[in-house]
Amino acid sequence: MPSKHWTEIAAEKKGRQAASIPKEWILTNLPSKDTLNVVGFPEKSGLLTAKEVEITNTEVEVLLDKLAQGTWSSVEVTTAFSKRAIIAHQLVNCLTEIFIERALVRAAELDEHLRTTGKVVGPLHGLPISLKDQVNIKGLESTLGYVSWIGRYADKNAVLADILESCGAVLYVKTNVPQTLMWIETYNHIFGRTLNPHNRSLTSGGSSGGEGALIGVGSDIAGSVRIPAAFNGLYGLSPSHGRIPYAGCVNTSEGQDSVLSVLGPLANSLSAIKKFMKAVSSQTPWLKDPLVIRKPWDEEEYRLSDHGKDGPLCFVIDWKPLKHGEIYNAIVNIWAAGAAEDYHASILPSGEPLIANMSPAAEEPDYSGATVRPFVRPEGATAYQLWQTQRKRTELRQEYLDHWNATVASTGTGRPVDAIISPCAAHVAAPHGMAKTPSYTMIWNALDYTSLALPTGLSVDPALDTKKPAHKFFTEMDKVNYDFYEANTFKDAPISIQVIGQNMEEEAVIAIGEVIDFSLKAHSGI
Amino acid sequence: MPSKHWTEIAAEKKGRQAASIPKEWILTNLPSKDTLNVVGFPEKSGLLTAKEVEITNTEVEVLLDKLAQGTWSSVEVTTAFSKRAIIAHQLVNCLTEIFIERALVRAAELDEHLRTTGKVVGPLHGLPISLKDQVNIKGLESTLGYVSWIGRYADKNAVLADILESCGAVLYVKTNVPQTLMWIETYNHIFGRTLNPHNRSLTSGGSSGGEGALIGVGSDIAGSVRIPAAFNGLYGLSPSHGRIPYAGCVNTSEGQDSVLSVLGPLANSLSAIKKFMKAVSSQTPWLKDPLVIRKPWDEEEYRLSDHGKDGPLCFVIDWKPLKHGEIYNAIVNIWAAGAAEDYHASILPSGEPLIANMSPAAEEPDYSGATVRPFVRPEGATAYQLWQTQRKRTELRQEYLDHWNATVASTGTGRPVDAIISPCAAHVAAPHGMAKTPSYTMIWNALDYTSLALPTGLSVDPALDTKKPAHKFFTEMDKVNYDFYEANTFKDAPISIQVIGQNMEEEAVIAIGEVIDFSLKAHSGI
Repeated sequence: MPSKHWTEIAAEKKGRQAASIPKEWILTNLPSKDTLNVVGFPEKSGLLTAKEVEITNTEVEVLLDKLAQGTWSSVEVTTAFSKRAIIAHQLVNCLTEIFIERALVRAAELDEHLRTTGKVVGPLHGLPISLKDQVNIKGLESTLGYVSWIGRYADKNAVLADILESCGAVLYVKTNVPQTLMWIETYNHIFGRTLNPHNRSLTSGGSSGGEGALIGVGSDIAGSVRIPAAFNGLYGLSPSHGRIPYAGCVNTSEGQDSVLSVLGPLANSLSAIKKFMKAVSSQTPWLKDPLVIRKPWDEEEYRLSDHGKDGPLCFVIDWKPLKHGEIYNAIVNIWAAGAAEDYHASILPSGEPLIANMSPAAEEPDYSGATVRPFVRPEGATAYQLWQTQRKRTELRQEYLDHWNATVASTGTGRPVDAIISPCAAHVAAPHGMAKTPSYTMIWNALDYTSLALPTGLSVDPALDTKKPAHKFFTEMDKVNYDFYEANTFKDAPISIQVIGQNMEEEAVIAIGEVIDFSLKAHSGI
Repeated sequence: MPSKHWTEIAAEKKGRQAASIPKEWILTNLPSKDTLNVVGFPEKSGLLTAKEVEITNTEVEVLLDKLAQGTWSSVEVTTAFSKRAIIAHQLVNCLTEIFIERALVRAAELDEHLRTTGKVVGPLHGLPISLKDQVNIKGLESTLGYVSWIGRYADKNAVLADILESCGAVLYVKTNVPQTLMWIETYNHIFGRTLNPHNRSLTSGGSSGGEGALIGVGSDIAGSVRIPAAFNGLYGLSPSHGRIPYAGCVNTSEGQDSVLSVLGPLANSLSAIKKFMKAVSSQTPWLKDPLVIRKPWDEEEYRLSDHGKDGPLCFVIDWKPLKHGEIYNAIVNIWAAGAAEDYHASILPSGEPLIANMSPAAEEPDYSGATVRPFVRPEGATAYQLWQTQRKRTELRQEYLDHWNATVASTGTGRPVDAIISPCAAHVAAPHGMAKTPSYTMIWNALDYTSLALPTGLSVDPALDTKKPAHKFFTEMDKVNYDFYEANTFKDAPISIQVIGQNMEEEAVIAIGEVIDFSLKAHSGI
């Protein structure tokens, strides 16, 4: 056991984090805790110049053009985004590692390169990108919110960090996660809780909850990109496994090779998502990470070559979910097979307790019964038992593919349905502690399908979104979710949807997403 | 327990197999058991007409042209190959399911289609293809050599069987395997032992040992395509996982999702291997099997776009194996984690013993200690223990990729080494019971690299290939392999090599194989 209590070690780390914030950016005019919607605050904070407001409100594609033309320098852009990130952090507590000084050195090098060669370093030249805490950056910690991991400094970059730097990106902050990652809210014993900027009484989602408040890279094994994207009104892509390199990231339950976590972008525009995917692919990540598939970005697939090109698309409105309960159970059993031992290996060395509840009341909780939580079975499983579950899951994948293909009989296009449109969760961003299950998102992880969270541009309006009469509940969880809905509680929470394509359909899903996004914007007049 | 003894059930099945052989093809002029090399016998058997000899000696590409032009009918070609397969079976015992009548009906339909439409059904129109016993064909058994699986008739085709039929292929026989599949020799309690046609005192290899004697589709998790190919002087491709659909095949240790078996072709020409790969890819298998990668055959990669196009290739002659022992142990530990329980689930219901030794002396063995055999640990492992091994394996994959990339410093091409050339095994086809380890092949399965077995055109000549003086042995197994070498024992055994590319490099490996094949043929004057 360490000589210091874990709370002391966590506090020291939190202190180091506080010290990494430029002092002149610490605000004294923060809104009171009672101010729930803080989305408009950064622009009114007084810290950002008019130009910095303009820069941070510019769409990524335009921003990249201006950076490439030298209209705006990377130092200017990085300063603007860093300031805005620090303001956000003071409002919603979204960051873990903060390394702005280092980012500005890098930005200056990029500016110098452009000035002397007239050329950009790569397709993301000068653009600040934040990374979920999991992504190793040389010389920085990746604690994942585990007290026992404090002091583990990465000796090299994760492959994605290298690739983004090769593309010209500027890394400047890492973002918060829940302990163990396996939550759809964001709270841990080192960095605390991340709040939703639209309504701070609501969760930012998880596990890429820190990303939800900014723009950057998250990871998704059950909805951890799409749920924060949806809860924060952002675009978020959960690609199929093997498109974006994961090598060199830290993770929980490493060695669980069956239902795998993937990295994916969150952004405030779909064009930024596309830009990110194309940029990473342009760096032949399959030559750097052995788990990445040798499949370059396919412009033909983006032009919907497998979806009738310019013809009409078909989304079966009344999708019949096939055995979602069985699929859910299969992957929960896969994760639970070794989760308890895995978590204990990371929490026992420091003595910190396993978080068993995301409720704020549990921030100083009675930890009895703390080993009982979602996706954990203390007894674990044997390898042979795990194989039986994995076999079942493969059978379900085949059944689902056949089910999808069978829709050819009802679409009228001669093709099966082109994509599925669904909610991202049973609810919009929930009050802290109330977001219980990623059942709408994790099904697609189980099938390794491509899935995109897409904001509708709408948010909860208590005057319009009154509680509906009770329906016949499918499950106990259905009732729990119904019961906690009160329109006022969810004021201003963004409303999002999810677009789901088949395995490795990143190009097509982005293209179909653009069609839907255009229609939504045309409809809502946003 | 069943009412009949397992030996009786096995004998009944073997009897049904015998009854499925057309009576007029049963030979009475078979060479004596002392005749070891039977490669030339089929042509002298008297059963094949001159035209049938010509047909069965024709290269697949030419054969397909003649079939497409209607020069030869599919009925003619299927009859010729069926006869030759049945002759081979009487010489080396290579078949499991025999369904020639059904194949001829199918062939007649294909002929009729060509006659009436003037078009081929697909790129393999009229071509007979054999399949390893694992590949389900509707209405037939896939016993895998397990007595308890006798009577399990497939209710539908495996995806690959469907795809081959869509391509116009004619399925006509299935081929023998070792019990549990996890051997590099071929023997089970139902169908017995498959022999090597070049020297029947030697093994045909395994686990696709029945395929080794013909042309068709095998599977490979540790060398099971390449070793039979090498031992029989054939070409054999072990693709990366996700190129050829495996769905609907039976297997051992199903649900083991980490180091996976792949299907791949064995053939007597490299152009046939290419033809097969292109044909399967042309049927968009990723829309039929959820584990197939959405990656069409890439003609650019075949033209070596990633390997300098028409420039010189570089193979580092002295490849430094990186941690092959650790890689070997990692995947053995993965397979062993649940193997004992898996095997018991298939052998206990019939009461047949687990085969613990491939020696002919063990065909009527004392089965004590029968649970101790390669790749099995009776105690198994927990899921968490398995994850730790899988994690280690992923780390080793990364290290190997970095190791490969580092060769850029020594090739002179500006690229890392284009491929590795290695032996397929520590020895050519070994005497029955003596082929102990697939250590030269399974490394590449662990890394999920593409690997191609390629015959040199040479075979063991006892006058030339005398025993070399003893060297310093790397391991105990190295000494075992050295000790059993006596030139006369291995007379006529084919000598092969293996060409290894990186993950998903099927196109490039075939193209590089063609360069090497051409050089070998030019050199040896074959």
